[in-house]
Amino acid sequence: MQFLSDNAAPVHPRLWDAMRDADTTDAPYDGDALSRSLDKAFSDLFGMDCAVVWTSTGTAANCLALATLVPPYGGVVCHDDAHIEQDEAGAPEFYTHGAKLMLAHGPHAKLTPDNVAAVIDPIRDDVHRVQPHAIAITQATEQGCVYTPDELAALTAYAKAKGLKVHMDGARFGNAVAHLCCSPAEAGPAHGIDTLSFGMIKNGGMSAEALVLFDPARAAEAKRRHKRAGQLQSKGRYLAAQLLAMIEGDLWLSNARAANHAAAAIAKAAGDRLLYPCQANEVFVTLSADEREGLRAQGFGFYDWGADAARFVTAWNTDAADADKLAAALASL
Amino acid sequence: MQFLSDNAAPVHPRLWDAMRDADTTDAPYDGDALSRSLDKAFSDLFGMDCAVVWTSTGTAANCLALATLVPPYGGVVCHDDAHIEQDEAGAPEFYTHGAKLMLAHGPHAKLTPDNVAAVIDPIRDDVHRVQPHAIAITQATEQGCVYTPDELAALTAYAKAKGLKVHMDGARFGNAVAHLCCSPAEAGPAHGIDTLSFGMIKNGGMSAEALVLFDPARAAEAKRRHKRAGQLQSKGRYLAAQLLAMIEGDLWLSNARAANHAAAAIAKAAGDRLLYPCQANEVFVTLSADEREGLRAQGFGFYDWGADAARFVTAWNTDAADADKLAAALASL
Amino acid sequence: MQFLSDNAAPVHPRLWDAMRDADTTDAPYDGDALSRSLDKAFSDLFGMDCAVVWTSTGTAANCLALATLVPPYGGVVCHDDAHIEQDEAGAPEFYTHGAKLMLAHGPHAKLTPDNVAAVIDPIRDDVHRVQPHAIAITQATEQGCVYTPDELAALTAYAKAKGLKVHMDGARFGNAVAHLCCSPAEAGPAHGIDTLSFGMIKNGGMSAEALVLFDPARAAEAKRRHKRAGQLQSKGRYLAAQLLAMIEGDLWLSNARAANHAAAAIAKAAGDRLLYPCQANEVFVTLSADEREGLRAQGFGFYDWGADAARFVTAWNTDAADADKLAAALASL
Amino acid sequence: MQFLSDNAAPVHPRLWDAMRDADTTDAPYDGDALSRSLDKAFSDLFGMDCAVVWTSTGTAANCLALATLVPPYGGVVCHDDAHIEQDEAGAPEFYTHGAKLMLAHGPHAKLTPDNVAAVIDPIRDDVHRVQPHAIAITQATEQGCVYTPDELAALTAYAKAKGLKVHMDGARFGNAVAHLCCSPAEAGPAHGIDTLSFGMIKNGGMSAEALVLFDPARAAEAKRRHKRAGQLQSKGRYLAAQLLAMIEGDLWLSNARAANHAAAAIAKAAGDRLLYPCQANEVFVTLSADEREGLRAQGFGFYDWGADAARFVTAWNTDAADADKLAAALASL
Repeated sequence: MQFLSDNAAPVHPRLWDAMRDADTTDAPYDGDALSRSLDKAFSDLFGMDCAVVWTSTGTAANCLALATLVPPYGGVVCHDDAHIEQDEAGAPEFYTHGAKLMLAHGPHAKLTPDNVAAVIDPIRDDVHRVQPHAIAITQATEQGCVYTPDELAALTAYAKAKGLKVHMDGARFGNAVAHLCCSPAEAGPAHGIDTLSFGMIKNGGMSAEALVLFDPARAAEAKRRHKRAGQLQSKGRYLAAQLLAMIEGDLWLSNARAANHAAAAIAKAAGDRLLYPCQANEVFVTLSADEREGLRAQGFGFYDWGADAARFVTAWNTDAADADKLAAALASL
Repeated sequence: MQFLSDNAAPVHPRLWDAMRDADTTDAPYDGDALSRSLDKAFSDLFGMDCAVVWTSTGTAANCLALATLVPPYGGVVCHDDAHIEQDEAGAPEFYTHGAKLMLAHGPHAKLTPDNVAAVIDPIRDDVHRVQPHAIAITQATEQGCVYTPDELAALTAYAKAKGLKVHMDGARFGNAVAHLCCSPAEAGPAHGIDTLSFGMIKNGGMSAEALVLFDPARAAEAKRRHKRAGQLQSKGRYLAAQLLAMIEGDLWLSNARAANHAAAAIAKAAGDRLLYPCQANEVFVTLSADEREGLRAQGFGFYDWGADAARFVTAWNTDAADADKLAAALASL
Repeated sequence: MQFLSDNAAPVHPRLWDAMRDADTTDAPYDGDALSRSLDKAFSDLFGMDCAVVWTSTGTAANCLALATLVPPYGGVVCHDDAHIEQDEAGAPEFYTHGAKLMLAHGPHAKLTPDNVAAVIDPIRDDVHRVQPHAIAITQATEQGCVYTPDELAALTAYAKAKGLKVHMDGARFGNAVAHLCCSPAEAGPAHGIDTLSFGMIKNGGMSAEALVLFDPARAAEAKRRHKRAGQLQSKGRYLAAQLLAMIEGDLWLSNARAANHAAAAIAKAAGDRLLYPCQANEVFVTLSADEREGLRAQGFGFYDWGADAARFVTAWNTDAADADKLAAALASL
Repeated sequence: MQFLSDNAAPVHPRLWDAMRDADTTDAPYDGDALSRSLDKAFSDLFGMDCAVVWTSTGTAANCLALATLVPPYGGVVCHDDAHIEQDEAGAPEFYTHGAKLMLAHGPHAKLTPDNVAAVIDPIRDDVHRVQPHAIAITQATEQGCVYTPDELAALTAYAKAKGLKVHMDGARFGNAVAHLCCSPAEAGPAHGIDTLSFGMIKNGGMSAEALVLFDPARAAEAKRRHKRAGQLQSKGRYLAAQLLAMIEGDLWLSNARAANHAAAAIAKAAGDRLLYPCQANEVFVTLSADEREGLRAQGFGFYDWGADAARFVTAWNTDAADADKLAAALASL
């Protein structure tokens, strides 16, 4: 009974079918018919004009986005728990040629106008200081929480007033939309997000993420950086096929709903032990070392979250019975 | 009848099977059982201790290798037709943080001690000049030619004497081995190559190349750079599965032989029109614009090679009948 | 009566003399006799073998040092008030090709084993996290405080145990030595510092700082990076002349003592208003906006330090009468 | 009798005077009155609106210019003898974050529309190829030759038609103007040059070069990169003073004329042995090893130029008698 990571889940059958359907001779790189149809497919999904570049990792999608938004001598405000700061091995600095991550603090791993202002207001506008050029937020956040449309509207309005671009790391964007019960546009892009990493791999994909650029004029530069970063695969049709299959019939959404549903059952059982509100597919639970050992002895797999807690992650394929067993185990503590 | 690119070919059925077999829950990134078995599998294949890192592109494999061999203030000698110079969009400069490619000239897109010496001998050893730190060769070369073991031995001895590391871009390494009828070690690694990009995608793969490090001590750094470059996929087992399936029963070799065989038939028909010896799976043929138009009218797909020639590429799945038709068409010109 | 910055002070007469003495024809770059004598002169000063590279700024000296100590994928622990974090415009990221500054917190802008441990202990040793490779400290610190030899010994022992290199930003190193009444080695190098930016410009120089490498084997790489950074001036003898004149007769020390002396008089008058202990040539004083306005009306020039304080900086040439006037003005508040 | 390098010459007395005049207390960095007057002084000189940034080296000036003109994924066409390719240790790649130098070939180290076209016409406009974004020329060239206004007009018109920016490395710009007997604008800027490194150090300066930006809107970015590169000296008034003294009364021009005059005398004596036309202050002369040895035995200092020639460089202070002696020695061979 594995709750380690949504990355550990297998690939959805409909993506296998789509990849097999793509298994013919076609133009290499992103010249194939499937890759060429991505812009329209995502523009339709969001009801907004956009350009899409497939990547093999969320790290690449995030960092390509930042590199198109921020010069090497600029800065990006993000939460100090942000994946780009904590878990991407310096990839943002690599792709941007040394832009500085500027760390904001606040609950639920969320940026707000206030905690961003606390970072940028003290920065004198002179050449000695790195100046902020963008903010980067994660939807759902690294603590499994979801920005509401109102929160997004306030934050993007603030960013616009300050002349900052906005990137959204949507590694679990589907889970956020599933939680909000809103359109995918309302969960981010409609509020003036410049770029979105629309995560597919944690949500049933194999090897394709979607970098979505809401100013399609940015695509030309992004594609040059993409090739230069060694991301332009020679058989891109297998990546495009995954993305299209995810969109088809809103598979991304039903997968995310399934994961959220399983997480909610676990969170409910955790009760007061919940560290953060469970709004997506991650459940953070206060658990002593003994309790964690006990759960592992019962066959549950999960990561520690600091010294006194654990993180349980569900996925598109989490077995409801397994989730119920975990919920029961937590309830009985 | 498509002879545009081996990248246009589909994926070999045994790789599909291997990926489906890998479609279970396992540890994310490269912590899965398959990824962890790569070092041994390739060490067995080469009869040499090595470490292996999967990448999604040959560009990433090449450039990660160079970044581990050459400091930002160093240089890499390569042929002026080298893929890293011509077709990788500045990725070597990106991954190495600005190392300089130093261009050698010579027939068959090959480096020799002489043409490397012509590049490096005039470089004064002072701080004003970028100093060479490595040479990079392609096996088979960008003109479809293959370094013999003797040529490799001479070149690597020269490199060693000059204190230069050696990287081999093996995008079509299988085709080279198939041509040489030697062990894979003899086609490069046994002569003291430091790093090898062992190409699998053109040879029946989907999305996985193998970066092979013959000094396993380099692996730790390579893996940090790999993650930092956005290359560490979260479901790495599907890449490892491809590489292992390729090695299993020497599928890489039989695929390469099939491609070479088809190319040889075409080359034979081309006769005096051959621009370069056909030693792998690419055939470069002198053809006027009219002749090319005529061939296209007969349904043959291929790229122009300059103003007066064409390039025909075969793949693991090239239909023998198609190759024969092309051969006949060329013979009848 | 100017207390804005020691950068605002003029050049010491003995440096003018030395530069004029150097105003003959000599080899360009750092091939002149003066530049070639620097290693010995500084080795004698410190009683330790070292290599010296002149630079035109402390920023360049600091960042060249970091680039030789830390790979692009590594991290540098520094205080969050450190000049390299706050005031160098991203130069550390530029010179190191994207290494990450990791910010420690603590009083007096000092690093301690404890506050460094608070930064690095939570860093898992896996490829997802940037790993620390060095620590960078400032002597005297950005709050005008001085590390004692004991503090340095403890910190460098900790660094060594953790495998971390140590860089010392000595923009006001002379002031620190003057305060400690110890040998220059004891104020840093003797404890196992790897590299030191020995600041001369704030201390009476014009345009030359000394990057001191206590492992002379690092000099070759540092000199390549120095040239590549556009720091290798073509008439280096005028920089070397400044450095040698500073060392001659310990001019650096008498200049620093003069500055410290003036600062001490001001600090004494500030009494309980002192924000931090005054141990070098900077005095940080709690002052309301009205009080600051009043001082400015009396002709004192200085910078605000946040909303409720001011910074007064003395220099080698600060007039004792001016310092006394400022002291009197502060005492009368 | 030294003809090694104009970098070996001392500093002009009027610059010493200007620096001593600047030796008062003033605002640090480039906030002093002298630095703030540079834009106007150079705008007056050129009769064109421009912004000026002082640097400590021509390398820094050249590379800051390129970094503002070319993205990391772009290319710069230059002559294969260009200083930025041959003698700057990879600084262009460092400052631009990996842009590629694209090498043109042609006599006199000059770019022409034809030899630039030979480089860029074969570059397919796709993401696999680095695209050219600028050309960089040297006035006078590395072979001591000078672009005429007509040549410049033709080249800049071509560049404009191709969408390429133009940088001029004017390490010996004064010598070029002196040769052309035209206005400084006509020797480059008036033809639509974007950026100019106006060299002062070889021409009697000590440590200040002028980076001139003919689109002043570029200055803000250039100044951020300048600080980030460790080029923003804390006592900038001593650099500004040098530049202003050079402009005052056209000292730059009289110095250059003196150097050119001495070179012309030597060149005349060299007769048929001249490798290239002598149009500035460098004389390249075919000389056997024995002949070079003989000259050195007579006390002449100079560098070899390949195996069969020598380079003699004059400077603002070259003694006419020394030049005459060298001329006589050459004539007597």
